[in-house]
Amino acid sequence: MTEPIAAPLLLTPGPVTLPRDTKEAMLEDRSSGEDCMVERLQFARDYLRQLAKGTKAATVIPLPGSATYANEAVIRTFVPTGGKILIHSNGAYGDWLVAICRAMGTPHSVLRTSPVRPAEAGEFRQVLLSEPDITHVMLVHCETSSGLLNPVQDIADLCRETGKGLLIDAVATFGAYDLDIGKLRYQAAVLSSNKCLEGPPGLAWVVADRAVLEACKDNARSLSLDLWDQNQHLERTKCFRFTPPTHVVAAVAAALRRHEAEGGSPGRLERYRANWRALVDRMRQNGFETLLSESASAPIVATFHNPNDPGFDFKKLYGELARRGLIAFPGRLAVQNTFRIGCMGAVSESEMIGVANAIYEILSEGGVIEFGRGRSRAA
Amino acid sequence: MTEPIAAPLLLTPGPVTLPRDTKEAMLEDRSSGEDCMVERLQFARDYLRQLAKGTKAATVIPLPGSATYANEAVIRTFVPTGGKILIHSNGAYGDWLVAICRAMGTPHSVLRTSPVRPAEAGEFRQVLLSEPDITHVMLVHCETSSGLLNPVQDIADLCRETGKGLLIDAVATFGAYDLDIGKLRYQAAVLSSNKCLEGPPGLAWVVADRAVLEACKDNARSLSLDLWDQNQHLERTKCFRFTPPTHVVAAVAAALRRHEAEGGSPGRLERYRANWRALVDRMRQNGFETLLSESASAPIVATFHNPNDPGFDFKKLYGELARRGLIAFPGRLAVQNTFRIGCMGAVSESEMIGVANAIYEILSEGGVIEFGRGRSRAA
Repeated sequence: MTEPIAAPLLLTPGPVTLPRDTKEAMLEDRSSGEDCMVERLQFARDYLRQLAKGTKAATVIPLPGSATYANEAVIRTFVPTGGKILIHSNGAYGDWLVAICRAMGTPHSVLRTSPVRPAEAGEFRQVLLSEPDITHVMLVHCETSSGLLNPVQDIADLCRETGKGLLIDAVATFGAYDLDIGKLRYQAAVLSSNKCLEGPPGLAWVVADRAVLEACKDNARSLSLDLWDQNQHLERTKCFRFTPPTHVVAAVAAALRRHEAEGGSPGRLERYRANWRALVDRMRQNGFETLLSESASAPIVATFHNPNDPGFDFKKLYGELARRGLIAFPGRLAVQNTFRIGCMGAVSESEMIGVANAIYEILSEGGVIEFGRGRSRAA
Repeated sequence: MTEPIAAPLLLTPGPVTLPRDTKEAMLEDRSSGEDCMVERLQFARDYLRQLAKGTKAATVIPLPGSATYANEAVIRTFVPTGGKILIHSNGAYGDWLVAICRAMGTPHSVLRTSPVRPAEAGEFRQVLLSEPDITHVMLVHCETSSGLLNPVQDIADLCRETGKGLLIDAVATFGAYDLDIGKLRYQAAVLSSNKCLEGPPGLAWVVADRAVLEACKDNARSLSLDLWDQNQHLERTKCFRFTPPTHVVAAVAAALRRHEAEGGSPGRLERYRANWRALVDRMRQNGFETLLSESASAPIVATFHNPNDPGFDFKKLYGELARRGLIAFPGRLAVQNTFRIGCMGAVSESEMIGVANAIYEILSEGGVIEFGRGRSRAA
């Protein structure tokens, strides 16, 4: 086997680099029924509900597996037979939601909007007017494939006005943004333990309106992905229905303690903003251009246009960065000929500047001299 | 929060106690696309296929989440519209398979047999004769709720003779038993990374007949739990479709290396047999009786009748054992008034004897004097 790079820095928009003590929580073996595990789970549920500004009218449901499972579970559980869901997409993660509906045969419409500017409520209104049989609307809060932040409050207001159930994929934002369930009145929002919450991947969460959820019995046509069933079991027994990823659960509890200590979501957002700022400023100094305007971007990931040079090859750049212990993520882009650098996780401003410098050095050595779109800069 | 017990020994039939170096593999952050992660995944798939004695005609598919998800995924993917599955149950884990079919609305019949003796092929034959529309048969190799081992080769022979597709829940056995896909001709078998493979929970696996799987496109009516889709994506890209539990994947690769070093499944089975033997012998010396005959038991867990004493309270015993760092598992039993002690994981014969001694001491102190069913022994 190839010798892996020692302790790399993850610059992917998930999985992110975790603090050492969060990972050390995985060195313990625990039975899921032990008091300490029951308490960790309860703490995590309570803490996440508090982040969502939820009262007892909200419940927080853990779902082992990828966050995509939780998106599927939300659609399965909340959209009843006879329902129809409008999926909004302006990138790869919105397209996953469409793929979920297609696979399940869930009646749905798709609203595709520009990948380089936030969706507008007017675009949603138009579809809702022309398709009155739509019962639910689902959108991705931040398109991780670009960093584009969608105006979730505007869409929430529209859903409230028109009586549609709102479902939100908040996988990439929750923990830096709060998604207030009182203000947004969503039926369900999907979170990841990874990303802005800086726990290991392998455990997703759903924040749900308890009253709406309680009417969703038998909707899911799945045992594994039935959030109603998972919730009632949890409330009754304080435990998971099936063996959970115990080590991951322990690490997530540790990650949430750290989140709390960092000042919650505002503290984390501030740090990510500083990371994003440092990266983008230095990249711009080096001639790169961002795909999105600043106001449209969430600071969890920055997307840049490829250099305007036929010699540019992202795979080569990826490989050279990896040799320096800097791991980018190839593919899953909203717009072709762009590349992304994640700004989440246990990374610092100075590390982000180091990344920008490394990119510049590698491309200069490779003879790429035009870093910006159409602009020429000597290396 | 309660101060958790330091470094407990898990005597549950999963999660099991893991070796330290397996857990230390979780101290690294890795992107799922890094070469070392692609190689770990490939190694795990190849190694598991080799354990199943599979040629290239078999494929091994990882599925993040609980093993129950993989059982659901197997039923979803392999039983087509128009199919009907016979679920065998002689315990709590067989009952989960029934619950999966009920939740999904999959046409099924249930064959319930005695929880204290292995099922017989004749019992299956009778149902298959009277319900010729059955296309698939699914059974649990070892009922973890008791330790009962079902005669999977006999059922496999019957399925071959009658042309039924065979699906096996091998969650509790694979890694100690091999489940030869050539001899058993199953369409799919579900494995856990935890249990006998001694990795952390959070990643299940399916060993599948590639030709059968390839005909299962569009069966699953789920994106997350579609094994056909997961397999084709893996074969094409060498990566997961969605963010996998990267730390768990790394630990599972380490666990499989250790499994190989221990002499594969025969080596592991031998150690578990010694654990089981040591536990059961000492418990019998102390007056306890096992639920099952030796020939019917897999050595992954031992189930004992409760002492014949009205003062016996498992919860109290559980609590006292926990105080000594010994974690049993309450509930999920095949037969009432029994309790289980797991023999899997990084535990030794002398530790098993220590467990038996601790149980005896605790109950003696608690005034329980009749440890066996109906037999009286002075403490």
